[in-house]
Amino acid sequence: MDIQAAFYKGNKSITVGTIARREPGPQEVEIRVGYAGICGTDLHIYHGHMDHRVTMPQVIGHEMSGVVERIGAQVTAFKPGDKVTVMPLDSCGECPACQDGCSHICHNLKFMGIETDGAFQSFWTVPAKTLHRLPEELSLKYGALIEPLAVACHDVRLGNVTAGDQVVVIGGGPIGTLIAMVAKAAGAIVTVAEINPYRLTLLQQLGLNTCNSKEVDLAEYVQKVTGGRGADVVFEVTSSLAGAEVMTKLPKARGTIVIVGIFSKPVPVDLHRFFWRELKLVGARVYEHEDFEKAIALVAGGELALDQIISEVYPLNEIQAGFEQMESGSGAMKVLIRCNEGMQ
Amino acid sequence: MDIQAAFYKGNKSITVGTIARREPGPQEVEIRVGYAGICGTDLHIYHGHMDHRVTMPQVIGHEMSGVVERIGAQVTAFKPGDKVTVMPLDSCGECPACQDGCSHICHNLKFMGIETDGAFQSFWTVPAKTLHRLPEELSLKYGALIEPLAVACHDVRLGNVTAGDQVVVIGGGPIGTLIAMVAKAAGAIVTVAEINPYRLTLLQQLGLNTCNSKEVDLAEYVQKVTGGRGADVVFEVTSSLAGAEVMTKLPKARGTIVIVGIFSKPVPVDLHRFFWRELKLVGARVYEHEDFEKAIALVAGGELALDQIISEVYPLNEIQAGFEQMESGSGAMKVLIRCNEGMQ
Repeated sequence: MDIQAAFYKGNKSITVGTIARREPGPQEVEIRVGYAGICGTDLHIYHGHMDHRVTMPQVIGHEMSGVVERIGAQVTAFKPGDKVTVMPLDSCGECPACQDGCSHICHNLKFMGIETDGAFQSFWTVPAKTLHRLPEELSLKYGALIEPLAVACHDVRLGNVTAGDQVVVIGGGPIGTLIAMVAKAAGAIVTVAEINPYRLTLLQQLGLNTCNSKEVDLAEYVQKVTGGRGADVVFEVTSSLAGAEVMTKLPKARGTIVIVGIFSKPVPVDLHRFFWRELKLVGARVYEHEDFEKAIALVAGGELALDQIISEVYPLNEIQAGFEQMESGSGAMKVLIRCNEGMQ
Repeated sequence: MDIQAAFYKGNKSITVGTIARREPGPQEVEIRVGYAGICGTDLHIYHGHMDHRVTMPQVIGHEMSGVVERIGAQVTAFKPGDKVTVMPLDSCGECPACQDGCSHICHNLKFMGIETDGAFQSFWTVPAKTLHRLPEELSLKYGALIEPLAVACHDVRLGNVTAGDQVVVIGGGPIGTLIAMVAKAAGAIVTVAEINPYRLTLLQQLGLNTCNSKEVDLAEYVQKVTGGRGADVVFEVTSSLAGAEVMTKLPKARGTIVIVGIFSKPVPVDLHRFFWRELKLVGARVYEHEDFEKAIALVAGGELALDQIISEVYPLNEIQAGFEQMESGSGAMKVLIRCNEGMQ
């Protein structure tokens, strides 16, 4: 039997076609995919920036939710009908990072939906160990936001954000916005620096403080709102020269900067400021299982206004339109693809 | 009564003359100075790089040991005859950093021997609260090394170095060498990267592993000695472009880089590597009281081969020759100035 799938074919082209449905192996699970989100990484692939990592034509996508359809012979932890999401990491288990308990930064990490096939299809078969159960009452739309939310939970955890902290997020795209929401849920006082008017309005609707860093000097703003003390934690989510330049001016003595943005090349950084104020900088990459559990708990708790994050939902056969909307940037925060009809 | 003192007069000139002996205030102590070391910072002053911070003619110097000569009326913790050294920080007590318990990175920090008069004189009068007691049997020559050793103890503490760690120190000058010695004393396996033949020989005599990074690729070397895992902790002590470039290639997944070198301007840093391996970077500045206590305990324990660090001792009236020897770089690790004769 064939199933429907979207294939990246290079050069900003995604076409929808069919692919053979695959029997789950002994330790695999087949998921009927509910929704799959378009991630910034998917956009990078779409733009051809990651052609060295994908094998065309390739089914991409890794932010998803669905319901278990079939299980492999050795799978006992899940049964058909379970609502699930996937932590899309395939680590080797043998490199020094895996041996040190950091399998999410495995030296040989494969990312499902980049190096292997992904979620933009009606059924996705994955190792059972990558699954996280979703509460029965949780909307599958929200379920597709668990993966990016787990990124935010990981970033906030590595930044050691605690209640009352003054937090600055540089960059209010999807990940920056989720970081701001998670930090706020942790009790922090959060300011998001952003220049895009659409995003600024949305951030304000989410109840977040914003600083239009095109119009206001961010360093002066942070000095003012913190009474000269500086921010406790700063998240750099723009991977821009301007972000790397301003980030060191914001933290308090012994404050923390979390590098979330993916910088494509070395950029000037004021290392003197690290010495002068004993700043800390921490790189954060993807997530660990506990971040997925935290993300699921946050969504289940109903604290986050996720409806406001979801800009649009397209059916799978209109996925190209979804990519084009995300690409336009100014009018979309998160676009979801509905991979099967009638799933809640 | 006048006392002997060395004055920095700008433009690589240090002259020895006299200055009025000062009565200690109620909370001050007058120290008969035994030895005072020439620090890299003193060399910077000598070269005119810090003329905006000193008031010429100025008595500089801040690495010292001595014996309490007279005490102010309200001083009870010390008495004449006590062997002491000074933690030469004058913090405001009121800024956010001081309020947060980080008085060593006070926003208004004054450094004794830079912003105020220093130790290159036969008697030095300082606030009693800056004193640390030295054990009676401890040589005053070693006592003059406590301050730079406290820097090293602070750096090693902020790097969280533990027994068995693979540690790389980039730069084997006086501070880099002391960091390596302190890390080794903590049970770490230490490699020092250095290019100066005099320093390489001395480091080897101290029982440290060395890598001549002019001849050997340091990143490959560290990969090899750590079996592909990477270093646990890396100390950047050169404040060079090359140091900033190589430092991110050395740590293991979630390894730490400690910034000790004082970078005069922003330099390119590979922030992608922080993301990719979840590296941590920590700036370290001077020391706190506990680092002085740790340094004193290490020296009192006799574990460190400090005799090998002291290249030469000059009497106060030959201080200019001491600066000239330090300036030559290649033939000196640490030069001490004997500020009074006959003190042990």
